[in-house]
Amino acid sequence: MTNFQEPIYDVAQLAHVELLSPKLEESVDFFTRFLGMEVTARAGQSVYLRAYEDFYHNTLKITVAEEAGVGHIGWRATSPQALQRRVEEIEKTGLGRGWIDGDIGHGEAYQFTTPDGHLMEIFWEVDYFKAEEHQKSKLLNRPTKRPDRGVPVRRLDHINLMTSNPGVDTQFMIDTLGFRLREQIQDNGNVLGSWMSVSNLVHEIAYMQEPNREKGKLHHLCYWYGIPQNLYDVADLLKDHGCFIEVPPNKHGVSQAFCMYVYEPGGNRIELFGDAGYIITDPAWEPVIWQMEDVPGNGDTWIGTAFPESWWVRGTPVTSPEVVKP
Amino acid sequence: MTNFQEPIYDVAQLAHVELLSPKLEESVDFFTRFLGMEVTARAGQSVYLRAYEDFYHNTLKITVAEEAGVGHIGWRATSPQALQRRVEEIEKTGLGRGWIDGDIGHGEAYQFTTPDGHLMEIFWEVDYFKAEEHQKSKLLNRPTKRPDRGVPVRRLDHINLMTSNPGVDTQFMIDTLGFRLREQIQDNGNVLGSWMSVSNLVHEIAYMQEPNREKGKLHHLCYWYGIPQNLYDVADLLKDHGCFIEVPPNKHGVSQAFCMYVYEPGGNRIELFGDAGYIITDPAWEPVIWQMEDVPGNGDTWIGTAFPESWWVRGTPVTSPEVVKP
Amino acid sequence: MTNFQEPIYDVAQLAHVELLSPKLEESVDFFTRFLGMEVTARAGQSVYLRAYEDFYHNTLKITVAEEAGVGHIGWRATSPQALQRRVEEIEKTGLGRGWIDGDIGHGEAYQFTTPDGHLMEIFWEVDYFKAEEHQKSKLLNRPTKRPDRGVPVRRLDHINLMTSNPGVDTQFMIDTLGFRLREQIQDNGNVLGSWMSVSNLVHEIAYMQEPNREKGKLHHLCYWYGIPQNLYDVADLLKDHGCFIEVPPNKHGVSQAFCMYVYEPGGNRIELFGDAGYIITDPAWEPVIWQMEDVPGNGDTWIGTAFPESWWVRGTPVTSPEVVKP
Amino acid sequence: MTNFQEPIYDVAQLAHVELLSPKLEESVDFFTRFLGMEVTARAGQSVYLRAYEDFYHNTLKITVAEEAGVGHIGWRATSPQALQRRVEEIEKTGLGRGWIDGDIGHGEAYQFTTPDGHLMEIFWEVDYFKAEEHQKSKLLNRPTKRPDRGVPVRRLDHINLMTSNPGVDTQFMIDTLGFRLREQIQDNGNVLGSWMSVSNLVHEIAYMQEPNREKGKLHHLCYWYGIPQNLYDVADLLKDHGCFIEVPPNKHGVSQAFCMYVYEPGGNRIELFGDAGYIITDPAWEPVIWQMEDVPGNGDTWIGTAFPESWWVRGTPVTSPEVVKP
Repeated sequence: MTNFQEPIYDVAQLAHVELLSPKLEESVDFFTRFLGMEVTARAGQSVYLRAYEDFYHNTLKITVAEEAGVGHIGWRATSPQALQRRVEEIEKTGLGRGWIDGDIGHGEAYQFTTPDGHLMEIFWEVDYFKAEEHQKSKLLNRPTKRPDRGVPVRRLDHINLMTSNPGVDTQFMIDTLGFRLREQIQDNGNVLGSWMSVSNLVHEIAYMQEPNREKGKLHHLCYWYGIPQNLYDVADLLKDHGCFIEVPPNKHGVSQAFCMYVYEPGGNRIELFGDAGYIITDPAWEPVIWQMEDVPGNGDTWIGTAFPESWWVRGTPVTSPEVVKP
Repeated sequence: MTNFQEPIYDVAQLAHVELLSPKLEESVDFFTRFLGMEVTARAGQSVYLRAYEDFYHNTLKITVAEEAGVGHIGWRATSPQALQRRVEEIEKTGLGRGWIDGDIGHGEAYQFTTPDGHLMEIFWEVDYFKAEEHQKSKLLNRPTKRPDRGVPVRRLDHINLMTSNPGVDTQFMIDTLGFRLREQIQDNGNVLGSWMSVSNLVHEIAYMQEPNREKGKLHHLCYWYGIPQNLYDVADLLKDHGCFIEVPPNKHGVSQAFCMYVYEPGGNRIELFGDAGYIITDPAWEPVIWQMEDVPGNGDTWIGTAFPESWWVRGTPVTSPEVVKP
Repeated sequence: MTNFQEPIYDVAQLAHVELLSPKLEESVDFFTRFLGMEVTARAGQSVYLRAYEDFYHNTLKITVAEEAGVGHIGWRATSPQALQRRVEEIEKTGLGRGWIDGDIGHGEAYQFTTPDGHLMEIFWEVDYFKAEEHQKSKLLNRPTKRPDRGVPVRRLDHINLMTSNPGVDTQFMIDTLGFRLREQIQDNGNVLGSWMSVSNLVHEIAYMQEPNREKGKLHHLCYWYGIPQNLYDVADLLKDHGCFIEVPPNKHGVSQAFCMYVYEPGGNRIELFGDAGYIITDPAWEPVIWQMEDVPGNGDTWIGTAFPESWWVRGTPVTSPEVVKP
Repeated sequence: MTNFQEPIYDVAQLAHVELLSPKLEESVDFFTRFLGMEVTARAGQSVYLRAYEDFYHNTLKITVAEEAGVGHIGWRATSPQALQRRVEEIEKTGLGRGWIDGDIGHGEAYQFTTPDGHLMEIFWEVDYFKAEEHQKSKLLNRPTKRPDRGVPVRRLDHINLMTSNPGVDTQFMIDTLGFRLREQIQDNGNVLGSWMSVSNLVHEIAYMQEPNREKGKLHHLCYWYGIPQNLYDVADLLKDHGCFIEVPPNKHGVSQAFCMYVYEPGGNRIELFGDAGYIITDPAWEPVIWQMEDVPGNGDTWIGTAFPESWWVRGTPVTSPEVVKP
């Protein structure tokens, strides 16, 4: 291990995600009424939201669009210097799009696409959420009071993208942005899925194979509870109110996450994360490589029934007519 | 923020802790029977143990001693280069003790003391636990099967030390080892307690004021469940079997940890950690500073009854006769 | 056991309770906003409410009054014949008050007082809650959908009354109404508390000694979750919104109930019940008699800190100035 | 409702069940090691066990047999008089088998079969479990300490039998033993399943249609936790130790039970019950009748994936070769 390469830590976190929705107000109603999120701004065709333990102004932007999907993904750099270093690396790949002035909630950002065409941006300056007096918690480490609506999620967790070529996108995230590979599913040497992080979590981003090799799709966006029972509470609430639950509470083998998957009214898949999975603190972590035949329980379920076909093949925008729409 | 200083990440994790116990076999029985830990080695006056999701050979060494307390605290560096950098910093302080050959479970280590006199060591080379075939889980990210004994803890979490001067020790950990301050309790400008980490967790180490300004005491060692209900399960088990529970399940304000405190038979306080608290991903995190009068619920309890006097004053070794012994 | 006396089963259940509140609208806001209950009627100085799994029109009536306390307690008989038998027994005691025409939610009722002066009534005819189409759950055994407000309680559970003489009231409930004694706390032969039921639950009613031997007070009214984690969720919510939690989540020794106690804004103590305690199915159940010195944990706590003094001495209306008001 | 018929309460509870196992010691190991049960006697080809909150000497008898299945089902009467009344009713049906002297744990019992041929017995005299001093809990309402093995179940809950004709057996239990129908699944007027109780619980016994109209099979036996998280804990334990989980944690629509189904090594299906479902206290309860098309989630699942085919068709003894054996 004497040749151990020192890791790069230039991306700090997943800071926000823009979802596209053909049913903007219904989507906003879902996130606020059932998941207890808060609208912090509206501008043009977009609504900005945050969970009650998100520290920044917003972590979710929902924008009207004809089809569901992901607009862009926002990464915060670890420092201004780190931002510069990453922009230089991105520019070498020819995938850079250039700087934008920023958006509600953050300052200037450098935009780029991944090999599969997902739009991303990286930035340093952020706006913290400023709670009004009546919104403040006496918990100084909690930016706002726990909401009295729905079963409130606590913070943004991660994003999972479908890609025409997981191996290529995985390598891009590692080489260009400094992500570390934590777990991977392979099949005869092909990469079917990758879980990557820049933290002690197993992933801020995951890639999955799009079965028809279509590009640029969203698999899911995930918000976090950290309390297993809350998945049952929210599932009970959603079931009674007619929301579609694709995967009821279930424990992944990969990442050990206690998870659940629902569709928001716009059609995007949302994961709700019920515990802390496991934490990686080993600096020399060797990626856990699963061969497809070893993935537990007929498709990555440790405690739970095998995931439905739709979970494996449906991303947004939905392009194959045979794929179930909610 | 343009002058933001890039963080140092040279310590990766709390790797192991040595506890001292006047009742070695009773202590071992407590950790194995009730907390489901496993003995991985015995040598001389010491027994080595691990939890079922600890990846290394051991995370706990219990050594016979006349009095309870902490033997030493082992940190793993982020890389061989990081180890060298930290040793140089430590040597500048005059608190270095020099290199040792290692111990069961890790290679050569550099030992030093903190200003308060706690013995620590830092190293790079570790031995991973090698499960025998019948011990292996089909979960490739879990090093051994979940035990069928007690309510099994999953991994080592953090250590909390009592010190004659928390301000001085806090600064040492920040300046010399690169820890970041996450939360702090102050009283009229004096530091009463500090929570520090080198990760997304709120702390791998905390310091608390020893009320009589005695040096070198242990407040507690913490193992992690991540599942809130498990604290009730283990409390029920421990209560029925006559173990002393100093603080029943309770939610700290500082760190938001869902916690519980018990005394192992040797007399050391053990924390059991029931959830994930909250996670810090903001690279520019400003430490949360609590003034003593703002600490929730009459002494750092958010949901729960005020902690007993003993929790605030008793460290091991117990030196004040008036302090409750279990 | 051949002389085993066949039990009487003439009271079926606790059907509703009337609370008195000097702050009617604030009390209603508490039950609807934080506990997710629903207002089903308003009439005169009263508001009627139900939890989402209560099958009847209402289980809680809150009436304006100068002081907090209990208005009356409503029992449903097991059959019309059982109602007649019980009225005959009550009339023998001289404590009968006579028939009333009924109230919103139930038909004619026979009113009486207990020896301590608590007003009760017994009846047969009830009105079931009739959900409108949009309120109906697809769960046919759930009368309405799970609410999207607060952490919603599921159903009325039990009532606990303070009395000047628990022994006398206990005997009245057994002899006159057919309750069975399940658990009791005694001190030197004196009855300090009794838990009684007409079901497999440990209690629909409990009596506790009022320390100043004052009459007619309420100790608490209890609603049920059945899910332990929900107590932590609602405690977190209430704490953030400034509600007074007298006893955070705790496990009683007596009844094994996982409990929590809060004050509603009118001043009455409300228990929230987090699990199922234990169930009595043995038809020859011998009451569990606790001597005060055997009551666990310094005052009936199995897992949790000793209950505060206020829990032992404060009933509503509050008559002793030294007792804490919220 | 003036003609409301007063209910009969002559059966008090499900007191014990005899399972048949071709792998006696493996079955005993499963119940003791993973479910924390205790062997209280061994005699001949049988082993007797209890859970730690079972009050009687035993609730489970496992007897060696060539095929898995149920030996007999033991009901305790509400009183000696109730026993006599029930025996008279049974004898009228011609299904009586006569008195036996009793067995380890209970006194003389009257044996009979149901129309489908399941062997049952009813009795009054029971032996309570007498804990030795070191086994006693300080909780006087808990007959023995919580075990330190596995994830310990708390008490026997109910039995579910497969029958060639659920309508006929349901009527027998109601007319002859005094059970009350709580919920039922019908299909075009045919009874497919019935849930019946003599308590506030939804069922002590359920009947399901055996698809090939074979007689005398067991669907499952159920032990109770009452704590939802414990299902995940025991599922994790069982999964790691290679036990077959047929249905991972799931919430039934019928009965609202939070459930899980596993096969013990002898081949019998065991349900583990994670919460309290809902409680029936209404004395005039109208059975909830589900039409097959209204049963939630493609086969009686409220929160969870549809039950596998095996759950609907496999009883023990397994007679159809095409049915999955674990």
